Amino acid sequence: MPRIHEDRRRRLQAVLTARDLDAALVTELHNVRYLTGFSGSNGAVLVPADGPPIFATDGRYIEQGQVETNLDPRLVKGALVPKLPPIVVEAGHRRIAVETHHLTVDQYDALRSADGADSLRLDSLERAVEELRTVKDAEEVAALREACDISTQALERLVAGPVVGRTELELTRELDNLMLDLGAEAVGFDTIMASGPNSSIPHHQPTDRTVERGDLLKIDFGARVRGYHADCTRTFAVGAEPADWQRDVYSAVHEAQAVGLDRARPDADTRAVFDAVLASLEPTGHADKFVHGLGHGVGLQIHEEPFMGQTTTGRLPDRTAITIEPGVYLPGLGGVRIEDTLVVHADAPEILTTASKDLRVVG
Amino acid sequence: MPRIHEDRRRRLQAVLTARDLDAALVTELHNVRYLTGFSGSNGAVLVPADGPPIFATDGRYIEQGQVETNLDPRLVKGALVPKLPPIVVEAGHRRIAVETHHLTVDQYDALRSADGADSLRLDSLERAVEELRTVKDAEEVAALREACDISTQALERLVAGPVVGRTELELTRELDNLMLDLGAEAVGFDTIMASGPNSSIPHHQPTDRTVERGDLLKIDFGARVRGYHADCTRTFAVGAEPADWQRDVYSAVHEAQAVGLDRARPDADTRAVFDAVLASLEPTGHADKFVHGLGHGVGLQIHEEPFMGQTTTGRLPDRTAITIEPGVYLPGLGGVRIEDTLVVHADAPEILTTASKDLRVVG
Repeated sequence: MPRIHEDRRRRLQAVLTARDLDAALVTELHNVRYLTGFSGSNGAVLVPADGPPIFATDGRYIEQGQVETNLDPRLVKGALVPKLPPIVVEAGHRRIAVETHHLTVDQYDALRSADGADSLRLDSLERAVEELRTVKDAEEVAALREACDISTQALERLVAGPVVGRTELELTRELDNLMLDLGAEAVGFDTIMASGPNSSIPHHQPTDRTVERGDLLKIDFGARVRGYHADCTRTFAVGAEPADWQRDVYSAVHEAQAVGLDRARPDADTRAVFDAVLASLEPTGHADKFVHGLGHGVGLQIHEEPFMGQTTTGRLPDRTAITIEPGVYLPGLGGVRIEDTLVVHADAPEILTTASKDLRVVG
Repeated sequence: MPRIHEDRRRRLQAVLTARDLDAALVTELHNVRYLTGFSGSNGAVLVPADGPPIFATDGRYIEQGQVETNLDPRLVKGALVPKLPPIVVEAGHRRIAVETHHLTVDQYDALRSADGADSLRLDSLERAVEELRTVKDAEEVAALREACDISTQALERLVAGPVVGRTELELTRELDNLMLDLGAEAVGFDTIMASGPNSSIPHHQPTDRTVERGDLLKIDFGARVRGYHADCTRTFAVGAEPADWQRDVYSAVHEAQAVGLDRARPDADTRAVFDAVLASLEPTGHADKFVHGLGHGVGLQIHEEPFMGQTTTGRLPDRTAITIEPGVYLPGLGGVRIEDTLVVHADAPEILTTASKDLRVVG
């Protein structure tokens, strides 16, 4: 799909022209992939404000780079960054923006002292490509949808089977394998499988604790498809009708999550969405137990812009993909988090993680 | 095991004293783990030339940080790096070394412009901690040994089962699950399972190609235990006595690998080890088909210092853990790589990946 990558590069070229830059030297690998399709572990792309891009990689990736990018890769031996200035100079560019949020101090120094670099004027590209990436195109939404469908199906198969008497680690292994069976290219991130008191730890790592009747079971997981991540959390009651406190916490979080979905519209202020969700928890007495951000962008990275929390600024773009994931955690007792991945639209978000959000009892 | 981490910090303190530095601000997470035991995703440690260290992390990791480091973590909210200068200044340090190979340009700027930073003199720590990490202590060798044992056992179980008629992806899934069944905390890196012509691609990603009689099958894989990685490659003949060209390539690589093991001694020049292996391939006519480095350090990272290749400098430390992994690749036909993880000693290396290196036929 080189057409898609050309479209994306054109959007970046408009930024460069507006900022009076000759070219952007993109080295952050997710950004390189976004702009070229290249999925290897070492590559960079020079995007001029006008004219064809130059893609560079090492010997391992020449063939793969050609197939994926439909560009003619420039072979670079050894460390990539110091080899880039001659390529840039040869192409006739002078005022170059680099990714200062990604280049290390040493890489930047190597770039500045490389052959040909003295004629370059280096500027920061800032997070221009990350900003473009916040708006998802049709190809991206299709990959996210597929990743979320696989995740939803895997979860349903997991909770249809026995849960009581199995350890968190066993259930994690099964869920991960189900995602792969269903066609995920990889498990998108380390699955959180948190039972009983462990569910009150927001980022619990699965243990050999056995899941018991009366537990809450919080599962935060997601598949990866063509580089794109699903991110979903559901919380279940295990083996018995939920206790009053469990129902109470669950319904508080459930309603808070609905408030978040309701506020997630194009142009919404990210901090205001967070504040609305927090405010909805106030009457329940659980607001102080919501101890993390409300959500984040999701795409080629599991956590990317835009972020939504107590200190974030900025507005949600139309067609951005984000999570909405409030949680309430009662230390020693248990916790509930409900999280969807969704695409923001003017009328209503498209919720990609379609598993039921009712409080379900699993056995 | 806080004692171990104290020992490691003392080694770093000796470096600081020798370089007349007040303190090192360590932010690279593998280095932080090496010096403190902390395994979370956000933390930093200030190690003064003299006196107790200061460990900082965010709210998610305060409890885990305390347990793992046996230090009293300093709570930092939001981005970690800009919050560190006041902590450093308060502790009375002035001449601080930072990890310029890890800090981004933006992080470094944030550090320099943070409250209190104007009284700091920033220097580069260079790769001082990475250098300490090249020499493995007993705890580290134990973890590496365990990871390699699990990997070896998993491989033996895999190749005991049917291989012909299964896809590369199916075999990858089984091998990965076997490592987890045997006690790996994770699969250390993406398994390479390359059959038939695919085996001529050094870093092949598994496909749905079905493994056939007459193939070479190259498997590059490893388990992770307590953060430490195994790295092992074996190549098999599938379903039939190997063809003459397969025997020929295999024995060339087998002998080259033995030369590498033989040269891997304390104080050996890394480039000279590579050259000796390359020279041993010359009489076989395959030297130009050995297209990558000879090996790399292995520990908390799957690829770490020391590196051994055509352009490397430096010598192998005593008790460093490395791989030796020559390969010969005939495009369109197939390739052979044989790789061990080993610990360097004066008399002979301890080879941790003990699977047979004879050319075996698997079915």
